[in-house]
Amino acid sequence: MSYEFNKVWDFTYEVFLKMGCPTIDAKLAANVLVSADLRGIDSHGVARLIGYVRLWDADRINPTPNIRVVHETPSTGVVDGDSGLGLVVAPKAMEIAIKKADNVGSGWISVKNSNHYGIAGYHAMMALEHDMIGMSMTNASPLVAPTFSTERMLGTNPIAVAIPAEKQPPFVADFATTTAANGKLEILQRKGENAPIGWIQDADGAASTNPEELKKGGALLPLGGDRLHGSHKGYCLGSIVDIFSAVLSGANFGPWAPPFVSFLPMAENPVGEGLGHFLGAMRIDGFRPADEFKANMDVWINRFRSAKTTSEAQSVLIPGDPEREAEDERRVSGIPINEKVVVDLEELAKRFGLSF
Amino acid sequence: MSYEFNKVWDFTYEVFLKMGCPTIDAKLAANVLVSADLRGIDSHGVARLIGYVRLWDADRINPTPNIRVVHETPSTGVVDGDSGLGLVVAPKAMEIAIKKADNVGSGWISVKNSNHYGIAGYHAMMALEHDMIGMSMTNASPLVAPTFSTERMLGTNPIAVAIPAEKQPPFVADFATTTAANGKLEILQRKGENAPIGWIQDADGAASTNPEELKKGGALLPLGGDRLHGSHKGYCLGSIVDIFSAVLSGANFGPWAPPFVSFLPMAENPVGEGLGHFLGAMRIDGFRPADEFKANMDVWINRFRSAKTTSEAQSVLIPGDPEREAEDERRVSGIPINEKVVVDLEELAKRFGLSF
Repeated sequence: MSYEFNKVWDFTYEVFLKMGCPTIDAKLAANVLVSADLRGIDSHGVARLIGYVRLWDADRINPTPNIRVVHETPSTGVVDGDSGLGLVVAPKAMEIAIKKADNVGSGWISVKNSNHYGIAGYHAMMALEHDMIGMSMTNASPLVAPTFSTERMLGTNPIAVAIPAEKQPPFVADFATTTAANGKLEILQRKGENAPIGWIQDADGAASTNPEELKKGGALLPLGGDRLHGSHKGYCLGSIVDIFSAVLSGANFGPWAPPFVSFLPMAENPVGEGLGHFLGAMRIDGFRPADEFKANMDVWINRFRSAKTTSEAQSVLIPGDPEREAEDERRVSGIPINEKVVVDLEELAKRFGLSF
Repeated sequence: MSYEFNKVWDFTYEVFLKMGCPTIDAKLAANVLVSADLRGIDSHGVARLIGYVRLWDADRINPTPNIRVVHETPSTGVVDGDSGLGLVVAPKAMEIAIKKADNVGSGWISVKNSNHYGIAGYHAMMALEHDMIGMSMTNASPLVAPTFSTERMLGTNPIAVAIPAEKQPPFVADFATTTAANGKLEILQRKGENAPIGWIQDADGAASTNPEELKKGGALLPLGGDRLHGSHKGYCLGSIVDIFSAVLSGANFGPWAPPFVSFLPMAENPVGEGLGHFLGAMRIDGFRPADEFKANMDVWINRFRSAKTTSEAQSVLIPGDPEREAEDERRVSGIPINEKVVVDLEELAKRFGLSF
């Protein structure tokens, strides 16, 4: 069933208020969370709202954090998120990166002591209106086995890069460093379908097509799938995200990254504080005049979009195209919310005396 | 047959001198080029020396370039390579990035008007001795088809990231953003073996196992191989490298990137100047004390190296392990050089009156 965007946003906002977030933070968190639903990334939107509430119930989320820079240079710094919602900590850290870029050309903030931050793309896209390139990455609950391993050592550790153009819409890449994101497995589970080889392995490290494999000790696979197809490169990417987000900031890294679900315990003997992110902004005119660059981006985008394809029905996509199309459509026709998620939201409505 | 490292280096240095490079540049170019042979990346070392000479013959390489910063902020800038060897331009640009990082925490240099720069990892690793994280990427001759396309629009566009540790050797990722690098196809061609599905497609965009496919209009595939296995993510990565290296600097991007081989003509109506690179350095202590970070990197490395594997014979590798092992071995036992490459080097020796 579909729900009007404004109603989904309002409800989300009200829930964050009930968690004790200040008005301004509740708005920001709602903006970030619901941008996922708007952009068609259903796994990271209101479907996760109850998860955040449960983390708050478990005292793992501080609704009134003192988010602050604890170490810095003119172009770099570490932000302590004080156990706040990543949905609030990350955009505030990105504002700091943008400010630094304003001052000295680029800004890079590594964040510790945070929580899951919604879609990576939201934070990267904050740079666009400033004529900056935005970057965003985060570590996440360990679900991914490095090449040759049977252990879950990394999260799906996404990378987002947003690049402005002139007449063309911006280039916005936002992708997990695994073959397939966990959300895609959940879709297969609901449909009762098998996964392609290369997405997951079983607990012994053998290729599997069973989308329920993660519940039995299996793991997601790094982009590439297996060694022959370059999974060591996906493992490199996921590792870089982990190190930039968590080792550079002093957050928990690798298998110590805190789980998103509150029913899983935190790792024993943590190696850092909370979850980590890495956010960056580079001023275009720190390299060349922004109008020249953006005109060239239009050339780039037009050339790639018009590249020959195997079928006339399918043109080459520019990163960000599918999400923008989803947003255009959903602003009009509403946000489709799956039945199980509706049950969760009704539970929240009842608990907090809200209407959904 | 194997050749002593010093002899390979000396010969390479002499050839660059004969091309008219100043002594200091010839040394630098030899260091960069032969580091590939040392690290086991045979496709990017002396095997390419004759290619650089042919580009010089075709007046596409300027042996005495005026390499200079043409636009900058405290943390960013563009370097014009003046058609110099990428082997010289890139490390000089990286020195500038390191200097900026020294001053304001990080430094990011986009380079235009350059040529192929050897292995990406060399330049990234320059940051290590300064207790910095180094990054390096470059665009390259178009050989890769974006997802859904039959056209070659991107190069193998590598990314390298070097991260220092304390007692452990550094983390050094250096990988093409394709399923397999072109050098791997060349090995299959020599052996007369087929490629796995997912590495290449034919001229019509169909999956192919023929390693000669690129000679018939086929293309390499982005990391992921096909849409179902995430090739759109490899395409995103290759595009980001292209835009950071070439659109940000004003070099030729996408299908306009200059070919490495001199017998292929330059693209008509170029959209920029030469080839582009992107180099970056971030001071560790711009984020947290370097000794704390490096101690945590040791924890990271030890934990990943000791992760459970499917077979006791194969441990999880840390990015940089295979190249470092190759280097340790080849410094002692010499650089293996393939017969065809030896013929090329003998041709260069004869032409320049050198001994090989």
